Amino acid sequence: MIFNLVIIGGGPAALTAGIYATRKKLKTLILAKQVGGQTLLAENIENFPGFEKISGKELIEKMRMQNEKYGVEIKEGIEIVTIKKENKDFLIELKNGEKIETKSIIIATGKNPRRLNIPGEKEFAGRGVSFCSTCDAPLFDKKEVAVIGGGNSGLAAALDLANYATKIYILDSLPKMAGDELLIEKLKQDKKVKFIVNAEVKEIKGDKFVESIVYNNKELPVGGIFINIGWIPATEFLKGFVNLNEEGEIIVDSKTNETSIKGVFGAGDVTDVKYKQCVIAAAEGAKAALSAYNYLTSN
Amino acid sequence: MIFNLVIIGGGPAALTAGIYATRKKLKTLILAKQVGGQTLLAENIENFPGFEKISGKELIEKMRMQNEKYGVEIKEGIEIVTIKKENKDFLIELKNGEKIETKSIIIATGKNPRRLNIPGEKEFAGRGVSFCSTCDAPLFDKKEVAVIGGGNSGLAAALDLANYATKIYILDSLPKMAGDELLIEKLKQDKKVKFIVNAEVKEIKGDKFVESIVYNNKELPVGGIFINIGWIPATEFLKGFVNLNEEGEIIVDSKTNETSIKGVFGAGDVTDVKYKQCVIAAAEGAKAALSAYNYLTSN
Repeated sequence: MIFNLVIIGGGPAALTAGIYATRKKLKTLILAKQVGGQTLLAENIENFPGFEKISGKELIEKMRMQNEKYGVEIKEGIEIVTIKKENKDFLIELKNGEKIETKSIIIATGKNPRRLNIPGEKEFAGRGVSFCSTCDAPLFDKKEVAVIGGGNSGLAAALDLANYATKIYILDSLPKMAGDELLIEKLKQDKKVKFIVNAEVKEIKGDKFVESIVYNNKELPVGGIFINIGWIPATEFLKGFVNLNEEGEIIVDSKTNETSIKGVFGAGDVTDVKYKQCVIAAAEGAKAALSAYNYLTSN
Repeated sequence: MIFNLVIIGGGPAALTAGIYATRKKLKTLILAKQVGGQTLLAENIENFPGFEKISGKELIEKMRMQNEKYGVEIKEGIEIVTIKKENKDFLIELKNGEKIETKSIIIATGKNPRRLNIPGEKEFAGRGVSFCSTCDAPLFDKKEVAVIGGGNSGLAAALDLANYATKIYILDSLPKMAGDELLIEKLKQDKKVKFIVNAEVKEIKGDKFVESIVYNNKELPVGGIFINIGWIPATEFLKGFVNLNEEGEIIVDSKTNETSIKGVFGAGDVTDVKYKQCVIAAAEGAKAALSAYNYLTSN
């Protein structure tokens, strides 16, 4: 038995690819570590078009049901060991020993935020601790917040928050913020913003919601903490198989989602797509599925 | 009064751009001929992630409400006369004489299918007449259908339909199909497919739903008709302002949605984006809004 398409991943990109692929009658299998992934952590998504407010869990559940309606097979709890190209087809080897044959592949394994690995970080995720200012800044209207990370993504988060929060502390462990001078200058002009360098962040405290952050020997009362110290794309198993960029993201043709290997496509946050957002990942999944279909009908 | 961003258009791309822009606190105005546009014609959308089945009208209504929640101003019944760049800003002149100033623009005016302009075409749109096989092929399971247009998009529609329909007639007015030989060969191998050349299509007949198509002096009983004779992007008012491709689509950077003019972005079906799909247009709107925000914060 050989599949037309195997989709690796379980987030919005993978699930939308599943919908598009099976509507084209491709025999499709989804291999996921966990259906939902990062999206499950989102308490409230308010920027997905069509839903005024929906939890990540509910949105994923709806997408999963669409896949089941069309008969996409979904295997969860999967870890990939290797992918090999054999003639025109692909052989995927799973950790449980199973081997799966397919004519094409979409990789949509997403990315994970780099963690501080301090007490409170995990406990308060979604309850004051956020990894996405574009998603969550509006929830911190009239609050005091801390941004961890003085690189460009941390500074961009601070700019997002400047539209809502009353006070923004930007903490970095280095003696100087690493981001662009232009952004630093812009933030310095805003009286609400305070830079704190040489700050070793040690703990996040709170009760039901974040209440403070501890760094060096100080405790700073804040109602929200945005952690922006980088991302880790889930591409460890792909090294040497498809071309990755310096950040470890899959390099894709941004029109067709083709990777460096014919018959293998990338979609969503795991790729070098510029903006990492739920609706964008979903669309990238649709694009990759349509390109896989074109590839299969012309080969 | 000067806007941060004016979005021209009223479909999923424009409305998603509105959501993303106002969440970034950009003072945003949407100028639409009609909110919804092409999407309003879709009776049932089944491939938008998150909705098992939704009418185009309902999906647009939900997106409009999200915009209103964030305070996006929407003006309907608008026709644009010209857009001029004045120093760093833009001046948009409307047909009603009004002039609007803005620091940036997103163009998301969509495209319209080229019509046959024959009796029955308009009356049966959404009731057997379709302009999108990717969207609607599954609705024609076990039916006999006609595809009008032997170019690549018509042939691709026929391939989509081959997964569902029991008989597919491909009609073209020319003595030979214009599409790629490879696709023609593939379709010729399928006994369900019949090519009809030199076919002048004259009328679509039916009662509540399509029942037949009349060409030359013949009447062919069919349960569905897919019209694939090209698209007209709504860019007439943009000629000489931004760079368009041969099809009249706005050429955009597919990562950032930038056009040839700094501060002007394109999104959705009006651009040279490869796949024209509702969720993809929505994502393109989000990308364009995030790029407009980046442009405004760094200029």
